Amino acid sequence: MGKIKIGIVGYGNLGKGVEKAIAQNPDMELVAVFTRRQPEQLASGGVKFEHISAAEQYKGSVDVMILCGGSATDLPEQTPVIASMFNTVDSFDTHAKIPEFFNTVNAAAKQGGNLSVISTGWDPGLFSLNRLLAQSILPQGTDYTFWGKGVSQGHSDAIRRVPGVKAGVQYTVPVESVIDRIRSGETPELETREKHLRQCFVVAEENADQEVIRETIISMPNYFSDYDTTVTFITEEQLAAEHQGMPHGGFVIRSGITGESTKQIIEFGLKLESNPEFTASVLVAYARAANRLSQEGQAGAKTVFDIPFAYLSPKSGEELRRELL
Amino acid sequence: MGKIKIGIVGYGNLGKGVEKAIAQNPDMELVAVFTRRQPEQLASGGVKFEHISAAEQYKGSVDVMILCGGSATDLPEQTPVIASMFNTVDSFDTHAKIPEFFNTVNAAAKQGGNLSVISTGWDPGLFSLNRLLAQSILPQGTDYTFWGKGVSQGHSDAIRRVPGVKAGVQYTVPVESVIDRIRSGETPELETREKHLRQCFVVAEENADQEVIRETIISMPNYFSDYDTTVTFITEEQLAAEHQGMPHGGFVIRSGITGESTKQIIEFGLKLESNPEFTASVLVAYARAANRLSQEGQAGAKTVFDIPFAYLSPKSGEELRRELL
Repeated sequence: MGKIKIGIVGYGNLGKGVEKAIAQNPDMELVAVFTRRQPEQLASGGVKFEHISAAEQYKGSVDVMILCGGSATDLPEQTPVIASMFNTVDSFDTHAKIPEFFNTVNAAAKQGGNLSVISTGWDPGLFSLNRLLAQSILPQGTDYTFWGKGVSQGHSDAIRRVPGVKAGVQYTVPVESVIDRIRSGETPELETREKHLRQCFVVAEENADQEVIRETIISMPNYFSDYDTTVTFITEEQLAAEHQGMPHGGFVIRSGITGESTKQIIEFGLKLESNPEFTASVLVAYARAANRLSQEGQAGAKTVFDIPFAYLSPKSGEELRRELL
Repeated sequence: MGKIKIGIVGYGNLGKGVEKAIAQNPDMELVAVFTRRQPEQLASGGVKFEHISAAEQYKGSVDVMILCGGSATDLPEQTPVIASMFNTVDSFDTHAKIPEFFNTVNAAAKQGGNLSVISTGWDPGLFSLNRLLAQSILPQGTDYTFWGKGVSQGHSDAIRRVPGVKAGVQYTVPVESVIDRIRSGETPELETREKHLRQCFVVAEENADQEVIRETIISMPNYFSDYDTTVTFITEEQLAAEHQGMPHGGFVIRSGITGESTKQIIEFGLKLESNPEFTASVLVAYARAANRLSQEGQAGAKTVFDIPFAYLSPKSGEELRRELL
């Protein structure tokens, strides 16, 4: 059987992660990376770059396009267009707009006879799967989702807009003591701000008043004022040495009751050194599923909820039952 | 839409757990419990008991039979027979015999035009799902499965066979320090015995030599001699008060690498106050899936690997996308 031929649309951190993930999967090959930039500026070891306008010419030679653009503006525009020509996988993560996005992509994919997996990754994606699984098994219970420790881009941007701040990064950190309470069977009602701390690492301008910066940050409405926020001043060298990674992760915990009052806890957690590389690895596994569903004659939009895990693996059903069940 | 009509085959701890789980799911109703015992001896509040030989008369009035017998002798015999007449769900957990069991049940279910979900529960079941998911996403990595803290029936039986022992229970306990090493990114090669402790709680006969009992237990080949084993002597009252529960649980952890050497850790864990009640809750969720797959015209044996999570939920795809994705 031939390899699954993958195209990547968009070559930021996520697209580069997908390139690396394909290299880990011997049943796949990267055909080309499609970009809005000038492709000749991106030439690198062995990868073929094409302008996104050339995508249509690859009909028949790409099995699945993995869309690596952003959810704000790229994917709402790109996914329906590409889904009319190719099977696709994307990581659309604007939760509130998923129903609308699903309908648009579903129509485009069906029209083209293609299969589109939308909104995969880890949240939405693996975390969503675990929320669904745990609720289905424990209908009486309480769900908790914690994010972090990880960089929040929006909050990091907010820090950098504070006068006197040269550079900075913000980590969202789950409150360990709250997690411990839930793991031990308590089911408190909690707002997001009660479940998470905000840690800010800030490089100040040379003559800036650090106390003023700290106050400005911790009192910033919406972003920080409702949270336990710490501000640590560091040097540019420390920022470069210790804060260039893109770690993330989190937990989905459901604490439920069976029978009279029997406590049952289901927990799923991720600890990621690189958020984009991990998300990319999820996209690639779902590209395998998209290809297989399409080969079976299915078309339209699907989510992680609709896809059996067997479709994520290169192994046969028989191998899976023997080795992993 | 009518309720999903469930039959229970076998009325031990698991069958009673299924009865309780059905009561938590408003889209289901319990039609009858089928047993090898005299049904009139089991009469209890509102539940209908039937001898197992009467099952065939329920064709058309039971949508899914949930088989609650043991894997050693009950299920190999019962599942194929019942699967020829009804959709079924079972928790067959003899890992080495799953491929053969699958083939037998698959043939019987197909012949009857029924859908059988085999080997569900939490291991095999949810743990298997997480092994498959994590391996598919992180093809380069190492898997760890830990069981416990939980009662091991086989080891408890072994204790009770030691001369001078009146009663006893054995808990398998994961070694926390090993879990911590793996969570922090180490990938040690480990045997089962390096990952688990064995805690024995023993009621000795009045004149028995406790030191001899302790030595006999901790040096017992296969069961205890390879493990760090503790033996604690307790009274019959303590046994009754503190060791009648059936807690269990465990962890599936995959520690993998993306890109060059980026560490990524996926973890799934369960902390269960009642193993049978939780297993029952999983069976009931998969009964919903079996019913739906059958209504779609599918037949034959399936495992958790073949079933999308959406099928476990009473909610529509639209609701799931809006609320849980």
